[in-house]
Amino acid sequence: MNFDPLLAKNDLLEAYKLLQPHVHRTPVLSSHLIDELAGCKLYFKCENFQRMGAFKMRGAVNAIMNLSPGQQARGVVTHSSGNFAQALSLAAKSLGVKAYIAMPSNAPEAKKAAVRTYGGIITLCDSTPEARESTAAKICLETGATFIHPSNDYQVILGQGTAALELIQDHPNLDALFVPVGGGGLIAGSAIAAKYFSPVCIVIGAEPKGADDAFRSLKSGKIELNQDTDTIADGLRTNLGDVNFPIIRELVKEIVLVSDSEIVEAMKLIFERMKIVIEPSAATALAGLLRHKENFKGKRVGIVLSGGNVDLSKLPFY
Amino acid sequence: MNFDPLLAKNDLLEAYKLLQPHVHRTPVLSSHLIDELAGCKLYFKCENFQRMGAFKMRGAVNAIMNLSPGQQARGVVTHSSGNFAQALSLAAKSLGVKAYIAMPSNAPEAKKAAVRTYGGIITLCDSTPEARESTAAKICLETGATFIHPSNDYQVILGQGTAALELIQDHPNLDALFVPVGGGGLIAGSAIAAKYFSPVCIVIGAEPKGADDAFRSLKSGKIELNQDTDTIADGLRTNLGDVNFPIIRELVKEIVLVSDSEIVEAMKLIFERMKIVIEPSAATALAGLLRHKENFKGKRVGIVLSGGNVDLSKLPFY
Repeated sequence: MNFDPLLAKNDLLEAYKLLQPHVHRTPVLSSHLIDELAGCKLYFKCENFQRMGAFKMRGAVNAIMNLSPGQQARGVVTHSSGNFAQALSLAAKSLGVKAYIAMPSNAPEAKKAAVRTYGGIITLCDSTPEARESTAAKICLETGATFIHPSNDYQVILGQGTAALELIQDHPNLDALFVPVGGGGLIAGSAIAAKYFSPVCIVIGAEPKGADDAFRSLKSGKIELNQDTDTIADGLRTNLGDVNFPIIRELVKEIVLVSDSEIVEAMKLIFERMKIVIEPSAATALAGLLRHKENFKGKRVGIVLSGGNVDLSKLPFY
Repeated sequence: MNFDPLLAKNDLLEAYKLLQPHVHRTPVLSSHLIDELAGCKLYFKCENFQRMGAFKMRGAVNAIMNLSPGQQARGVVTHSSGNFAQALSLAAKSLGVKAYIAMPSNAPEAKKAAVRTYGGIITLCDSTPEARESTAAKICLETGATFIHPSNDYQVILGQGTAALELIQDHPNLDALFVPVGGGGLIAGSAIAAKYFSPVCIVIGAEPKGADDAFRSLKSGKIELNQDTDTIADGLRTNLGDVNFPIIRELVKEIVLVSDSEIVEAMKLIFERMKIVIEPSAATALAGLLRHKENFKGKRVGIVLSGGNVDLSKLPFY
């Protein structure tokens, strides 16, 4: 199943109904002080409060629930060293399904432990993309489990889009929505939600300068890759894919770039003023809005805070 | 006006009605993972989300609102280098009243700036208690403003007690309530709330070992002082007073002591699992519960998270 403009509205509603019992409806928070600074009214969708600490739980649940009972019985596979490995493990556990995770052997022990806590079955491999993919493919062959891509999968995209859908349900009059861009699943899903449930709301992606593949892709009209990445926003170092890029190209107004220091500044504002913990990737959306705030004076702007899984011993505040 | 067992229930309700329009009704959050660790069901009253970031806003508002119009016209005074200076300044600003703050000249610039942002008029003085008190007294004489003590004032105590009152309104079946103990205003107010609105709920104070004056005072039956203090919980280094101590002695079941490493461990749990920012003083209550968790198996326990004003460049996570 793939994106079809005639079906997408219904597809998203289906995803929303399916996953609702398995994810938190996260709160939407505001801050007078940040509003004053931004010159507009901001609505923060707090996916840092989502199960396992990030929006990725939504896509993982929706992808698994859309498998046939036979497929579910054989389990699911992904390759990831980050939030999606944890999300797929926890989603699978919640739904009584096995999750196999191909993880680079040099991934931090804390991340391996988190995956195991959620019941994920880890196969260690080299850290190259090729090694991860071939390891995942081998697991698929051996177990009959279904591969689920962290961001380039239509059911994952729809799942991620339910965060923006909930935000729009709570605040139907948004003028714009800022979303961090990594692998492209969250922004593609958010753009579907805005297009069909808040048609006047423009969707803007925010991306670190040090991983600007989506910015370049939207300019050139084809998927551009990051050769190397250099950003504190570790969740946003991945490339777009052939499933989400057409959606992004069609429905996203613009991608804006922000520096790491702007990301840290936005992150600090959110910690200090809102008293909530977010990861650098999540701060990217607010950084993008602040950089272009003159364009949003007096508007109502949604900000997707994508997650809160940050290493507390490495916070960038000094 | 002072604590009177026959009037306290009504006094607290009056305070609640008066201050409600001027403070946030903060949320009560839970965490499955921390519940599992603790072996009981925990309800966290999130005063880190209160205006200016701490419960002290409540007491400051209530104290000012209980002044006569003539007193309000002449303003209020306090001496504090911490949250109460900011709370009184912001409360006064919200109510159209002048706030004079005697602040030690060696207080961090950030704290002075915060007080000024909220409209407080600072008089710098030496950092000894005597210098602070005489400076505040001088301001009272010169301006006719009314002195408001940060914790040893019955209206302040009642204001602080409204946080526990709201928690009890939201969760009427609590078996116990853990509250950090510093100057004694918060725990005295919380104990009044529990006594009259949830009589079976016991109230337990949690205090750092390095500032154990309340623990010793409850043992000896008279106010014991901290000679010197050594704790990361900088909001809890103050002594009890003659207004709050009789309430604490009568209504608080017990004071438990915790080490700084237990405070940091509890703080880390709250950052990591609940994704919210709290200050070390606020973590003390959870630390106290965790140290004595075997006594609360399967119970419903309230935890007052007193505030979130922490210096992000000095977080104790490494």
